[in-house]
Amino acid sequence: MRDVSIIGIGQTPVGEHWDKSLRDLGAEAMLAAMENAHLERPEALYVGNMLAGQLSHQENLGALLADYAGLRGIEAVKVEASCASGAAAFRMGYMAVAGGIHDMVLVCGVEKMTDTLGERTTSALVAAADATYEGEQGVSFVALNALLMQRYLYEYGYKREDFGGFAINAHRNAVHNPYAMFPKEISAKAFARAKMIAEPVSLLDSSGIGDGAAAVVLAPTEFALRHGLPAVRVAGSAIATDAVAIHDRDEPLFLMAAYLSSQRAYAQAGVGPGNVDFFELHDAFTIMAALSLEACGFAERGQGVRLAMEDEISLSGKIPICTMGGLKARGHPVGATGVYQIVEATLQLWGMAGENQLPDCRVGMTQNIGGSGANIITHILERVTP
Amino acid sequence: MRDVSIIGIGQTPVGEHWDKSLRDLGAEAMLAAMENAHLERPEALYVGNMLAGQLSHQENLGALLADYAGLRGIEAVKVEASCASGAAAFRMGYMAVAGGIHDMVLVCGVEKMTDTLGERTTSALVAAADATYEGEQGVSFVALNALLMQRYLYEYGYKREDFGGFAINAHRNAVHNPYAMFPKEISAKAFARAKMIAEPVSLLDSSGIGDGAAAVVLAPTEFALRHGLPAVRVAGSAIATDAVAIHDRDEPLFLMAAYLSSQRAYAQAGVGPGNVDFFELHDAFTIMAALSLEACGFAERGQGVRLAMEDEISLSGKIPICTMGGLKARGHPVGATGVYQIVEATLQLWGMAGENQLPDCRVGMTQNIGGSGANIITHILERVTP
Repeated sequence: MRDVSIIGIGQTPVGEHWDKSLRDLGAEAMLAAMENAHLERPEALYVGNMLAGQLSHQENLGALLADYAGLRGIEAVKVEASCASGAAAFRMGYMAVAGGIHDMVLVCGVEKMTDTLGERTTSALVAAADATYEGEQGVSFVALNALLMQRYLYEYGYKREDFGGFAINAHRNAVHNPYAMFPKEISAKAFARAKMIAEPVSLLDSSGIGDGAAAVVLAPTEFALRHGLPAVRVAGSAIATDAVAIHDRDEPLFLMAAYLSSQRAYAQAGVGPGNVDFFELHDAFTIMAALSLEACGFAERGQGVRLAMEDEISLSGKIPICTMGGLKARGHPVGATGVYQIVEATLQLWGMAGENQLPDCRVGMTQNIGGSGANIITHILERVTP
Repeated sequence: MRDVSIIGIGQTPVGEHWDKSLRDLGAEAMLAAMENAHLERPEALYVGNMLAGQLSHQENLGALLADYAGLRGIEAVKVEASCASGAAAFRMGYMAVAGGIHDMVLVCGVEKMTDTLGERTTSALVAAADATYEGEQGVSFVALNALLMQRYLYEYGYKREDFGGFAINAHRNAVHNPYAMFPKEISAKAFARAKMIAEPVSLLDSSGIGDGAAAVVLAPTEFALRHGLPAVRVAGSAIATDAVAIHDRDEPLFLMAAYLSSQRAYAQAGVGPGNVDFFELHDAFTIMAALSLEACGFAERGQGVRLAMEDEISLSGKIPICTMGGLKARGHPVGATGVYQIVEATLQLWGMAGENQLPDCRVGMTQNIGGSGANIITHILERVTP
């Protein structure tokens, strides 16, 4: 297998883009990534998206976006793993280049969520859960996360306010991200008083949905080095699955798929949690941030939330997370999120993260979670020093 | 890149399976393919599906099917290219094995279309077209094909009855396929008198939608030979795209994506149309069969329908197509169809096609079409002689 690197990135701001369609957003990010990589025409496009069929009545996004971006004719498909669709598409792009199928590949994550009523979007998102045993019983996706958070509070004896650090850190980091949906700080008091959505999950435990697209260009690392392109190599790439319904899992508070995919990625990259300089994790809800840190070896079970309480997740902490705002404050355009995480990690590793730049970071990890833990995709990215 | 072979197949009958869910169907085909390949646990699963989000309110089929088939933990994602989703998933599985990412991969195409009212299914299928410029204007997917067929009749001077041979051949071949939805012969008279759906497309020009799942196991050819497994090697694999909306294409009657993907697959396999012993093409509508034959080099432009008129597409003809019934008579469970085609081609190349067995066939081609020609995936399969 060939070593693979990211050689170009592009993103649109996350927000309520009522003036832009799904294809406008996707093409904008794709063309930006191609320009960034000095690439005229990739050989293939892998699109991450979850909801276009349900919300925009549009499938076949691979062909649609390829054509709209002027790439008619190339290989193009959509890849879906619910909320982890972005990283799933990136994984297919990685496979294509690593395996020598293609040399230049474009990956785009795109989602358009605000053109429909909120109830319809909430209903569409339940498709990430088990339709028969969860969705049809009337539970919303927020409620599933509320069940997990409530169980966590009960098992380990925390208060809901203890999770505030995750949201406060995310919002603080979003302030200097021009692509973030909510670039403003929040206080511990605001978190404590936030409106409940599904107890104990409040508005400020939850990431905001939005419209957006992010894209990257992948190429053999050898090509990047030969052409003097700034490159970030994909040192580890792994997908693991678990039961879709929470009640079917052995231990609901342990994200087995996060454990499995991070272990596989660590082994490929030859690193462990101790070598990871920052972690773009999937804080769709604050409880997911805590569970992800635990399953990936950054904290013992029941101790993930302590990293937030002790501010070890900030830019100067032991393990910085959500360095550009995370899902909470950059926004969570579901099928695009996994690619946003990779774009942001690339900015850090290139030293182009602006005010949020981590000093001397070499290894970044990204993790995209599909459903309430059913499909978890981990990537480890490394700075390439020519 | 490694040489890749199919070492196991599985399929469910296509039909109205009101007693079986999406996951029941998928797992049934997957477990059959695994048993056929003597495989206990693949490393990854790629699922082809188009409509589960819209019709079953279920996404994340990768994780769902992996878990339900007893494969919790493995890599699993869904791949979508509208009606070509099955072949798109197969293509990802091929890439994973060819590139050395995985050794043993399972591919499953699954679709559940008959649990909802027909109008809703018809509406969901329009997502294969351009939502903004076709779907929202009120055109159905059948109507788009009717526009193409009407143009063909006008340009080349045929009558609609001239297309009957495609449907008659498909139904004749389905009689001996135990998995076919409509295993009964039809007459030229029945075709001529068939009820119109969208003139000039009649009920007997159209494939029947249905529920079904098909699966295959992929492995390195070297592994198959070493273990004495019957193998069919993937000699060519290619995806090409075109504009999604028909009016955006340069020549609506020429399937450019079929031309491009077949040319790429021919080049990889080192063959041309003259070496292809049979062709499992995408006869969702009779017009698509004619256009596919023309774009892939089996007939000149405007002459594809002549192959049906002269019965050159039957099992003893110059280029046998739809040897187990095709989409028309085996049935068209949309996202599963591409895998059914590959399963059927494998049966022919293994010499296990029963009453429909082609004598001494060595090279088979399959082609899955997404939308009205937006995304076309061609595979060339070859018998492996140990």
